[in-house]
Amino acid sequence: MTIRYPNGKVYKPSGEVPKVLKTNKKEKNLSFSNRGKTLEDEINETNLFYLNHQIAVIHKKPVPIQIVKVEYPKRSAAVIREAYFRTASTTDYNGVWNGYYLDFEAKETESKTSFPLKNVHSHQIKHMEDVIKQQGIAFMIVRFSKLDRYFILPFQILFDAWNKMEKGGAKSIPLKVFELSSVEVSPGFNPRIDFLSAIEKLIANKE
Amino acid sequence: MTIRYPNGKVYKPSGEVPKVLKTNKKEKNLSFSNRGKTLEDEINETNLFYLNHQIAVIHKKPVPIQIVKVEYPKRSAAVIREAYFRTASTTDYNGVWNGYYLDFEAKETESKTSFPLKNVHSHQIKHMEDVIKQQGIAFMIVRFSKLDRYFILPFQILFDAWNKMEKGGAKSIPLKVFELSSVEVSPGFNPRIDFLSAIEKLIANKE
Repeated sequence: MTIRYPNGKVYKPSGEVPKVLKTNKKEKNLSFSNRGKTLEDEINETNLFYLNHQIAVIHKKPVPIQIVKVEYPKRSAAVIREAYFRTASTTDYNGVWNGYYLDFEAKETESKTSFPLKNVHSHQIKHMEDVIKQQGIAFMIVRFSKLDRYFILPFQILFDAWNKMEKGGAKSIPLKVFELSSVEVSPGFNPRIDFLSAIEKLIANKE
Repeated sequence: MTIRYPNGKVYKPSGEVPKVLKTNKKEKNLSFSNRGKTLEDEINETNLFYLNHQIAVIHKKPVPIQIVKVEYPKRSAAVIREAYFRTASTTDYNGVWNGYYLDFEAKETESKTSFPLKNVHSHQIKHMEDVIKQQGIAFMIVRFSKLDRYFILPFQILFDAWNKMEKGGAKSIPLKVFELSSVEVSPGFNPRIDFLSAIEKLIANKE
């Protein structure tokens, strides 16, 4: 949705510049680039915005941990002294929006041309497949970090690419497939990554 | 659902006894009582049954942990050496069933007469309130462990009791309120606690 001048510069309507930008001194920070944030940070910010504005209730699940040893010091909080990271059996994010169950994974890639499927685990595919069968909405948010571009990839597209790979096909999804078959979201101030607007489009397309 | 002989012994139809029961030596373990399992175990078993039978996709969220120190030994898995338990900002369970977003907390009490509200945290109430506003289904599964009775308490009943308590009212919900305003579930073999049948009743009552 970004409007550009013929020379490629982004058009900024003077009357509508958000306050935070007006007070920002550094020229290079005036764009909405990701400023070194992880995609996780950006999605968490977005979810907080949705929550505070009663738009949706979406949370990141905690990292699953296998706890082995806990100390209980007197008069202070319990300390975990030995624990291991476990593999998650689901995606990282889920929640409810306007009666819809949402379930998604967020992944970023440094590649400028395609999204490597090695970033996805088979149990995540299985989980999202289960979610779709229960009439939930499953998708993946993919950030091409070097390009500063964000795509909302419907599960079906991911699933097709996954199944082709399992049969010996390509191990990645080309950027072109994202451009054709997913909804691109321009990063903004608040919400940072307005993925619900993309989901709205996907639902409208289906109906 | 347990059938008993006049002497109190449990009736076991010879042809239908599940394998696990046949190999069980202790007489008192032959009923469907909770056998020392935590409610969490029982709900996890139930969710696994629902998942394997493609009835619903519901998972317990991992315990949120604040990780402070991690060691990365050569040639073996990363070890968490210092971490702390954090307070969850949501309920423990959520998922999707037949297009519905489900969100709940599971609590047990040793009391035989009422459920103490100190078992519930204000952020859980707030979270469930948010879920209801997004047209999700929020509820609480309460086990009266000493009575071996299980109730599916709709959020609205919990919310009313909570608000009364905040205004100086009772600090617990009497068993009688559960009997009148919630759906009781008899524990079974598989699924262990069939809470979805209770949710179905609650939805039918609303419509």
